[in-house]
Amino acid sequence: MLTEFGLIDIAKSLASKIPQNGFEGIGDDCAILNIGEDEALVFTTDLVVEDVHFLRREYTPEQVAHKSLNVNLSDVASMGVKPVATLLSVALPREVMSGDWAERFITEYTRLSKLEEVALIGGDTTASKDKIVINVVAIGRGSTSNIKRREDAKEGDIIYVCGELGGSAAGLKDILEGSALSRNAAIHKSPNAQIQEGIWLGAREEVHAMMDISDGIASDLKHIVQRSGVGAEIELRSIPKAEGATLEDALCGGEDYKLLLTADSSQAEVFEKEFEKRFGYKPYRIGRVCSGDKISWLDGSQLCDCEWQGFVHY
Amino acid sequence: MLTEFGLIDIAKSLASKIPQNGFEGIGDDCAILNIGEDEALVFTTDLVVEDVHFLRREYTPEQVAHKSLNVNLSDVASMGVKPVATLLSVALPREVMSGDWAERFITEYTRLSKLEEVALIGGDTTASKDKIVINVVAIGRGSTSNIKRREDAKEGDIIYVCGELGGSAAGLKDILEGSALSRNAAIHKSPNAQIQEGIWLGAREEVHAMMDISDGIASDLKHIVQRSGVGAEIELRSIPKAEGATLEDALCGGEDYKLLLTADSSQAEVFEKEFEKRFGYKPYRIGRVCSGDKISWLDGSQLCDCEWQGFVHY
Repeated sequence: MLTEFGLIDIAKSLASKIPQNGFEGIGDDCAILNIGEDEALVFTTDLVVEDVHFLRREYTPEQVAHKSLNVNLSDVASMGVKPVATLLSVALPREVMSGDWAERFITEYTRLSKLEEVALIGGDTTASKDKIVINVVAIGRGSTSNIKRREDAKEGDIIYVCGELGGSAAGLKDILEGSALSRNAAIHKSPNAQIQEGIWLGAREEVHAMMDISDGIASDLKHIVQRSGVGAEIELRSIPKAEGATLEDALCGGEDYKLLLTADSSQAEVFEKEFEKRFGYKPYRIGRVCSGDKISWLDGSQLCDCEWQGFVHY
Repeated sequence: MLTEFGLIDIAKSLASKIPQNGFEGIGDDCAILNIGEDEALVFTTDLVVEDVHFLRREYTPEQVAHKSLNVNLSDVASMGVKPVATLLSVALPREVMSGDWAERFITEYTRLSKLEEVALIGGDTTASKDKIVINVVAIGRGSTSNIKRREDAKEGDIIYVCGELGGSAAGLKDILEGSALSRNAAIHKSPNAQIQEGIWLGAREEVHAMMDISDGIASDLKHIVQRSGVGAEIELRSIPKAEGATLEDALCGGEDYKLLLTADSSQAEVFEKEFEKRFGYKPYRIGRVCSGDKISWLDGSQLCDCEWQGFVHY
């Protein structure tokens, strides 16, 4: 059985044989195109599908708009640059076309775009048989030297996460159990991209690798480790858990959209202080980049014999 | 009832209140971003939805790949620039994930991308409940001065179309009537974007307005007329009909993806000769841009009292 990762892998292996036309393509949160001496654009796309990413009866159109926009802006932010534009495609069943769903969706989408100063530059609207499907492409623009890649983690770096984890997974459980109005359910339905953090972190030289956590840190950290050719030690007791979230929610739950990064340990104190000054909270130290090619999960100093699996949507 | 045009209109009116960040957004085949003194990127997106744009039992995965890529490349070509990259999103039902559909689709998609020298720079793969949904974003790059817009038609221009029309509509009828292997059915299933024509036409100063015909010329020509603030006279006897297509197929049938353009009449002879030299066929003169704000359909010199409606997918 082909999984979504399988298809991406096939595409990646095939895409490498296609001319790149100056783009640095598949493999990071965004593709990168240099357009000037120290200027680049980044590109990302994410699908949001009814009954896979949201249930129509549980989500308002505004929440779907919020989610489809933010999951994409998060990918741009995780590259260290500012989102500047999106293209929006929506496939809508007949009964959704005829009600106020579409109008409420697009009104909220543009309201949020205005708030984040992101242009809506194009799109496509079409019918669908029975499910709502939304695709957003987000474009970011910034200084080439600010761009943070997954492959730049260095041995000795401290690993940080910019917020509590597991809230989204706990919220999904709440929704499935009928508590659709819980605090965590709101986190799950309307994740907020860390746009300002991303832009700020992009400009910090001590920040090396960065990505956003969309499939759970257990899964996403592997990308940094593999692409950087390093290992990592994570202290489980340091993982910041959202209220009501279990350790497993925090490690394996998807859709938290918090930034995960590695930074030069010699700059750690200044870095944390200035981050806190700017954002009112400290980035959470959760571990360290080491040699090797494995992630070691520590409970205290005790090696934990566990294999965490990342979140799979289906 | 909100139609797809309704939603685009709402988005457009709302989007105009959002910062544009240097993008020339919704309103043409592509959005435009200037990135240098005489260099620009263009962006477009199109959804291809099972049971709306294709039937799974009638289309091979290769045909779906061909169609989803080409409808997007066509929008880029119609701006007068070269397509350089795409982002590809696919939502696949479980039974499609488990078979060879996805692998055949992506193999053909990358084969065609290589052929057209278009990079595949990113994408998203996810599950869907029961229908295949594909979204492609295409990016083009070229000289700013080559970009052709819908709004640049001038009174006195000759109106051309770069190929026969109606083949796709006639092919759709064939498919619905069970002749899925007819010549026109193949045109409908695997439309070819006029990429080389678009690039060549972009570089011609005598070409003023340009777009591709995706909803039928009856509907698409209105965009040029409205945005340019002109009228048009179309000679129905000059409309080039594909073999087996009716006049209505040619005027109102969608998905032909031929380029529609207006060009300076004083340059017409040289233009047609050089076009023919380059492509082996003449562009078809079908009418003239005039004053006013209406499209007049002429049968000989007789005004035809008819209101052609463009193709609507559903």
